Amino acid sequence: MSQSLDNALQFAQKHASRFVDQLGEFVSIPSVSTTPERFGDVRRAGEWVADQLRGLGMKNIQFFPPDTHPIIYAEYLEAGPDAPTALLYGHYDVQPAEPLDKWHSDPFSPTIRGENMIGRGASDMKGQVAATLFAVESVLKSGGKLPINLKFMIEGEEEIGSPHLKDFIAEHRDLIASDFCINTDTGMLSPTQPTIVYALRGLAYFELHVHGPKQDLHSGIYGGTVHNPAQALAELIAGMHDANGTVTLPGFYDKVRTLDPEERAELARLPLEGDTLIARTGVPQLWGEAEFTPTERLGARPTLEINGMYSGFIGTGAKTVLPAYAMAKISCRLVPDQNAADIKGQLEAYLKAHAPATIRWELLEHVHGNPSISDRNSRWVQAMMQAQETAWGVRPIFRREGGSVPVVTDLQTLAGMESINIGVGLPDDNQHGPDEKLHLPSFHKLIESLVRFFYILDK
Amino acid sequence: MSQSLDNALQFAQKHASRFVDQLGEFVSIPSVSTTPERFGDVRRAGEWVADQLRGLGMKNIQFFPPDTHPIIYAEYLEAGPDAPTALLYGHYDVQPAEPLDKWHSDPFSPTIRGENMIGRGASDMKGQVAATLFAVESVLKSGGKLPINLKFMIEGEEEIGSPHLKDFIAEHRDLIASDFCINTDTGMLSPTQPTIVYALRGLAYFELHVHGPKQDLHSGIYGGTVHNPAQALAELIAGMHDANGTVTLPGFYDKVRTLDPEERAELARLPLEGDTLIARTGVPQLWGEAEFTPTERLGARPTLEINGMYSGFIGTGAKTVLPAYAMAKISCRLVPDQNAADIKGQLEAYLKAHAPATIRWELLEHVHGNPSISDRNSRWVQAMMQAQETAWGVRPIFRREGGSVPVVTDLQTLAGMESINIGVGLPDDNQHGPDEKLHLPSFHKLIESLVRFFYILDK
Repeated sequence: MSQSLDNALQFAQKHASRFVDQLGEFVSIPSVSTTPERFGDVRRAGEWVADQLRGLGMKNIQFFPPDTHPIIYAEYLEAGPDAPTALLYGHYDVQPAEPLDKWHSDPFSPTIRGENMIGRGASDMKGQVAATLFAVESVLKSGGKLPINLKFMIEGEEEIGSPHLKDFIAEHRDLIASDFCINTDTGMLSPTQPTIVYALRGLAYFELHVHGPKQDLHSGIYGGTVHNPAQALAELIAGMHDANGTVTLPGFYDKVRTLDPEERAELARLPLEGDTLIARTGVPQLWGEAEFTPTERLGARPTLEINGMYSGFIGTGAKTVLPAYAMAKISCRLVPDQNAADIKGQLEAYLKAHAPATIRWELLEHVHGNPSISDRNSRWVQAMMQAQETAWGVRPIFRREGGSVPVVTDLQTLAGMESINIGVGLPDDNQHGPDEKLHLPSFHKLIESLVRFFYILDK
Repeated sequence: MSQSLDNALQFAQKHASRFVDQLGEFVSIPSVSTTPERFGDVRRAGEWVADQLRGLGMKNIQFFPPDTHPIIYAEYLEAGPDAPTALLYGHYDVQPAEPLDKWHSDPFSPTIRGENMIGRGASDMKGQVAATLFAVESVLKSGGKLPINLKFMIEGEEEIGSPHLKDFIAEHRDLIASDFCINTDTGMLSPTQPTIVYALRGLAYFELHVHGPKQDLHSGIYGGTVHNPAQALAELIAGMHDANGTVTLPGFYDKVRTLDPEERAELARLPLEGDTLIARTGVPQLWGEAEFTPTERLGARPTLEINGMYSGFIGTGAKTVLPAYAMAKISCRLVPDQNAADIKGQLEAYLKAHAPATIRWELLEHVHGNPSISDRNSRWVQAMMQAQETAWGVRPIFRREGGSVPVVTDLQTLAGMESINIGVGLPDDNQHGPDEKLHLPSFHKLIESLVRFFYILDK
């Protein structure tokens, strides 16, 4: 057994540079799921994944609707009914690359710079999907046998809120049934600090439209008598936080779990400091609820963010227009036990209370997903801790993460399955931003730790 | 003389439909001065004007820099040194037509719908420039002689703030020297109410940039610790007015002339009511300083408007980004005796006092022009009143207008010349907006009233 493990690890080392090349191939497919123009590319990225699975000898490969962004299922059940079964989750779609002029290389021509691969989706999360495939390959192609059963569930709609995944999980509960899920769509604290995420924030995403005059007006001819929709929107947005950075939507914090002293002490051990955040983001000063640490605000506190804002003339130069309307994309990150469904009502209540009679407003709902929190003492989590500690030489840290992985909640709620969240995204990877990067040594460590994990479960 | 007047008026009637066709030719040239892509078209519109002037036998036709949007000068001095001289001002450039999807016909394929011509620039102000030319033509081509001397000063940069006109006026004071200026870049109250504008608001236009993180961030990974620039901008904008709609910039109202009871009584005679404004604009309710009437707010009170606003992701769908920056186009309409130069200082003082330490800001200045106010009892104004009263059968009304015509201020300041502002733009002409229109009966009345004006001065 130790020989099989060694063989697999040696295989991974020997093929490390080919793994990077193959990942580059994957990243070069512009599988942006947010725009219909990229439907064909999203599909191509799915085919790439399916080809890899086929090459590894995975069985029962199926594409589930929608056709444009299929959910890909595959399985390997040769470890037998007495061995544990893991569901491997991932997504092959990526965020839009805009604004393109902020990139220093083509987002879909992956480039190696130092220890990093630069390209849209390299870190979120094609690198991790590929690492999972290469870990399996290292075992199977080095003469070994997988000591556990595997099921793959790789989707193409994560960046648009996984609109079909929830139904898929509910309808195919038996097909995907596993002892636990390995989810690599999360992050590490630093390249030297393996991290197991035990709580994730949920997301509720909206679009607020403020309508004023029936069409754009001349600001000189009408200015002073008509409430400017951009100004009215700004007034509404400004009122959504108080001076402390606390969200003012009525009832917003009612279901937020109070942090107990023990958990606050544990979170305080995380090496994330204000100065680090300032250096990473480049802001002149941090912001947010003064009574919580930055770590607590990122993981254990809900937020309300403006993701986009538009009104009137935004081209070069000066156009003296009084705009007909203004729009903001507004999203909340949620923590246990908040519920995405409640948030829309709270936002509507706020708008009913504060929107003036001089404008009309309209609230649209985009994606939403609930927050989740998991048990840190399961057999699977303990095995993963051991695998990571050996691979990195450092005991992993437990963390609440600020991002949202709705599939973790859905697997728990609909299929009774707990997730181990062990992605290797780094805080400075620029996920969703320009110059997204993947730290390649971390990518290789992920392969190694998964190989080790498989063999630990075999004991 | 009466025979010459009759001949000229008959000529204008006989050629009315050809005048409309020729105007259509002028409007079809997309002379958008705000974008370099249209430099050639702006130039073409200037050539169109010069060709007309040449056809009328105007002399000393000259193009002044810049080459892209030349100021066109021409003169007719045959009335002799004892006759009065009028400077005819106009501009042949137009606003951008965007958003194109809001137009019901191509903005540069002028279309007649009922009594109106639809097209970008038809009302602002190609219709009026053409009417001026056709009035001169009606006199000269019907066998008459112009009883006054004329000088033309037609520019192509009005919609970008006339960056070269001020210097031109200062440098060519002798060339353009006239007894008064006729400016048709203003509006009428209604098609049946000729209007002489005696005061115009000034303009000071800025762009405010709020910078947060050095690049777009993932709103889940950083949200709660970084001040969202869109939110920070909204907070700054929201603070620029109080709940009454009063601008809060320090010192903003210090130089605003108090309206005396006599002028308030005169302005109260204007048939502009709240219900009319609501019907025209389609807003659910008017807005603005409660202690002033809508008419007073439009003409005699300064404003601060948001002309455009941008941050983050504004495409279709949901992108969970925490934007790196946010931008607003902000402009103030100024009234006597405010000064555009003061406003930048006031805005900077406001930002210094209210911008938080969690963001960086930057203020750019675009165009600016001072407000103006004129004597209502000059010989030229009285003659124009008489001409309009005969043409429309209604005594003209005096008005303070909300828009800005910096050239009026510049001619007064730099060349000691007063302007008579008699444009026929209507409040529902959608100037600067989609479906801009020109009311053709008003266009013909403008031709008639100018012809009458020329002969009244001859008495």
